[in-house]
Amino acid sequence: MFNPSQLLVALDREGEEPIYRQLIRTIRSQIESGELPPGTRLPASRDLARQLNISRISVVNAYAELRAEGYLSAHAGRGTFVSKEGNGTNPNPTSEKVVPVMNTVTENIAPDNSLREMMRMARKPGVISFSSGSPPVEFFPMQNLRDAINQVLDRDGASALNYEVPEGYAPLRSAVRDYVSALGIQCSPNNVLITGGTQQGLDLVIQALLSEGDILVTENPTYIGMLDIARTRRVQIHGVCTDEEGIRLDHLENFIIDHSPKLIYVMPTFQNPTGHVMPIHRRRQLLNLANEYNIPVLEDAIYHEFRFAGESLPPLKALDDTGIVIHASGYTKMLLPGIRIGYLITDGTYYQRLVRVKQAADISTPGLNQRVIHLMLESGLLGGQLERNNRELLRRRDAALVAAERHLPEGSTWNIPEGGLFLWIELPHNGPTAAELYITAIQQHVAYAIGNLFYTNNGGGNYKIRINYGIHKPADIEEGFRRLSKAWNEVVCEYQQMEKSPLL
Amino acid sequence: MFNPSQLLVALDREGEEPIYRQLIRTIRSQIESGELPPGTRLPASRDLARQLNISRISVVNAYAELRAEGYLSAHAGRGTFVSKEGNGTNPNPTSEKVVPVMNTVTENIAPDNSLREMMRMARKPGVISFSSGSPPVEFFPMQNLRDAINQVLDRDGASALNYEVPEGYAPLRSAVRDYVSALGIQCSPNNVLITGGTQQGLDLVIQALLSEGDILVTENPTYIGMLDIARTRRVQIHGVCTDEEGIRLDHLENFIIDHSPKLIYVMPTFQNPTGHVMPIHRRRQLLNLANEYNIPVLEDAIYHEFRFAGESLPPLKALDDTGIVIHASGYTKMLLPGIRIGYLITDGTYYQRLVRVKQAADISTPGLNQRVIHLMLESGLLGGQLERNNRELLRRRDAALVAAERHLPEGSTWNIPEGGLFLWIELPHNGPTAAELYITAIQQHVAYAIGNLFYTNNGGGNYKIRINYGIHKPADIEEGFRRLSKAWNEVVCEYQQMEKSPLL
Repeated sequence: MFNPSQLLVALDREGEEPIYRQLIRTIRSQIESGELPPGTRLPASRDLARQLNISRISVVNAYAELRAEGYLSAHAGRGTFVSKEGNGTNPNPTSEKVVPVMNTVTENIAPDNSLREMMRMARKPGVISFSSGSPPVEFFPMQNLRDAINQVLDRDGASALNYEVPEGYAPLRSAVRDYVSALGIQCSPNNVLITGGTQQGLDLVIQALLSEGDILVTENPTYIGMLDIARTRRVQIHGVCTDEEGIRLDHLENFIIDHSPKLIYVMPTFQNPTGHVMPIHRRRQLLNLANEYNIPVLEDAIYHEFRFAGESLPPLKALDDTGIVIHASGYTKMLLPGIRIGYLITDGTYYQRLVRVKQAADISTPGLNQRVIHLMLESGLLGGQLERNNRELLRRRDAALVAAERHLPEGSTWNIPEGGLFLWIELPHNGPTAAELYITAIQQHVAYAIGNLFYTNNGGGNYKIRINYGIHKPADIEEGFRRLSKAWNEVVCEYQQMEKSPLL
Repeated sequence: MFNPSQLLVALDREGEEPIYRQLIRTIRSQIESGELPPGTRLPASRDLARQLNISRISVVNAYAELRAEGYLSAHAGRGTFVSKEGNGTNPNPTSEKVVPVMNTVTENIAPDNSLREMMRMARKPGVISFSSGSPPVEFFPMQNLRDAINQVLDRDGASALNYEVPEGYAPLRSAVRDYVSALGIQCSPNNVLITGGTQQGLDLVIQALLSEGDILVTENPTYIGMLDIARTRRVQIHGVCTDEEGIRLDHLENFIIDHSPKLIYVMPTFQNPTGHVMPIHRRRQLLNLANEYNIPVLEDAIYHEFRFAGESLPPLKALDDTGIVIHASGYTKMLLPGIRIGYLITDGTYYQRLVRVKQAADISTPGLNQRVIHLMLESGLLGGQLERNNRELLRRRDAALVAAERHLPEGSTWNIPEGGLFLWIELPHNGPTAAELYITAIQQHVAYAIGNLFYTNNGGGNYKIRINYGIHKPADIEEGFRRLSKAWNEVVCEYQQMEKSPLL
């Protein structure tokens, strides 16, 4: 017979992993191990929630997900059962081979795969997904790309396909120097390191400047990819709270004094996920602070050029006269994500160290891809491309603001972005959290990024969601928000049926 | 006045960096700082060698290099002087900006740039360079590449240029599964992780399985790229001595018992640089040993398919029934280095961990590049490509063997490779070391890889050189060996003029 107390084992109320995901894991492993044989009837969601002292929404979400994976099946009026096939439709069967016991560093890499799982669910057909960080595919300059590739192959032949030096293809480094000088950054091509997208640039900096256990300080919330890096590189990450103008410098200074971090990571313009822009005075103050305590600053400028309103501000690197800023950006969001060309701008010693780490990481970024982006930059298409993109992004932002006003539950709040791709929404606290809402939203064919995935230190953002409005046409934005609203109402309705017991 | 004792400061006789390179660095920095003003006359090489108690060849090489860089100029009969222009032609001027004092982990990354410097010198025009690890550019299937790119763009449009999942483009993972099954490796596409070349595959494994300070055990000598990885990832690398059949298992077992390494890295077929092939019995014994002590084995199979003589042997992964082997290879050497497509084949838990590290490293390998390689594999061109390549490599190996016999100094020895790109030569010990010979060789317009760069633990291979015969046509191979012989004779002649004093 089924004994729900077995399910208690894995629940960790303090952990990063949402309760409903812990429940999924536990039930799934008990089905796979045979503890819960096919045909077993599971308790009603209300009963299980009461027994485990968790919200019923968590149980509903877990059952829904396990049904979608084929582990469970529901029979109207009779309840929920372990499927006859067991894990028949499990999309990732474990290998038959026996894996030796790990004798290494498992404990340092958290098992939380929420981001990847979340992104996968959003890929289901028919889902209007606001969850990714991608720019719209219809912005990609495909004909220019094709022309550039054929031109490179005509011009360079096989030498375009040989190994490239780790610093990057020299003409591209010069083109990047010219490009960033238009943003106010003065440097030589010897300060430009070409990377495999901006993500690799960030990762190389962490690896070159920090050892395991060293402390990295960031905005809170911050870019998910940096949380990934910190986890796999085993560095401690600490988020400092932010306001409308970005990272709070008083808190940052206190943290520096107390903890001596090795690096400050910020996204000063159109921060991901909040959309905040750090004003010029705070940029200068941040640099003063960094110089005073001699802590390098990693500036992520990936959305800098995505401005469709308000006045442009110089990147930190343009204000840096001591070489304390390492500037990371790339042509992934602006041109083509899948070609994976990013760059770092940095001075002297940092540069040499980064080149060594780059060479060890992958010898060099693909030479063909570097040459193609070089030709595209030289052709001068980028200016017009950004202008067109930003005009369209403004239209989509406006559609998102209208749809948010029309469909989001009363008490929701959001920013009014002047650039970038994201709306950062806070749902009212009297309803489901973003994580609790997620499965129902997917069932309503809409997806978003769950806010608490962006927070360091296991905390915050339970009611926050990030919406990539940039990726959809206005009509789909409207429809997506309508579905979101429907999902929210459905969950709240279920909550009300739960004899007015609180959701959490 | 010039005081040669100043030069003593930087000399480290125990370090990895050759003495002549330390000398270059020291003199260069003293010129840049103004300690050695323009016009200063340097002591004769013989005098400086005696004062510093180093070989005269080191001084000659250092002066030659500094002349080539423009720091020094020689006036026949009058001696060697600091150039009037100072560092006028220095190819890498340091940035004008002030770099803040490092507060981070400098000491963990050795300052040895020999490999990169060496590779750069080999790129001088007119040099017949045997030093790289590249396959011949004339092997690159350029028309197939161009067709595949245009076909992918026609078929997939913009979706070929969007973000890809970190595991890799699913059809490519299936194609790799099919490909390795022909080598005897049974796996599912869920065991295939696409990487940015084989180098990234190796680096991801180190990062996923080892923490800083952990011990990695390899063959000695071993692949230079793995030494780079160990240095930048701050893991300890220890090389175990090898014989004609690869790594010595008795020494390996003793090392395991004494030091508990976390990973064994080997290249069982056409090892780089020795060309050794591990016979089947030692492959099985190695796996037994790894299983007995439960230590994973990273198999680098990058040259496996480059066989032009002898009988083919199964990769370690094909003999692995416990999942203890991680198999790394790629289509860089076989097809196109600059497209940077490699792969790892691994089981269960390792796989999940590697995917997380891959996502943090660069999100994914470029989707366009993955699709292009997928189409090229599907087209079935690889079989014919390898056959043609290997036929030509055999011809070039034979040319190299003839040239070695004809030109190498008496007492030299070398292997007779049955595959791969390299001849591994030991020069007679009564002449210059490979490092001492290098600058003169460059002056004779021939380059090679200096043997001691491949050794762990700062030791061995002083008289070894690695020759990439695969990259040149037979006539150039002959000419390259002729130049090498000329360089060797020139150095030995200079040695004889040095009043019969020993070289070292």
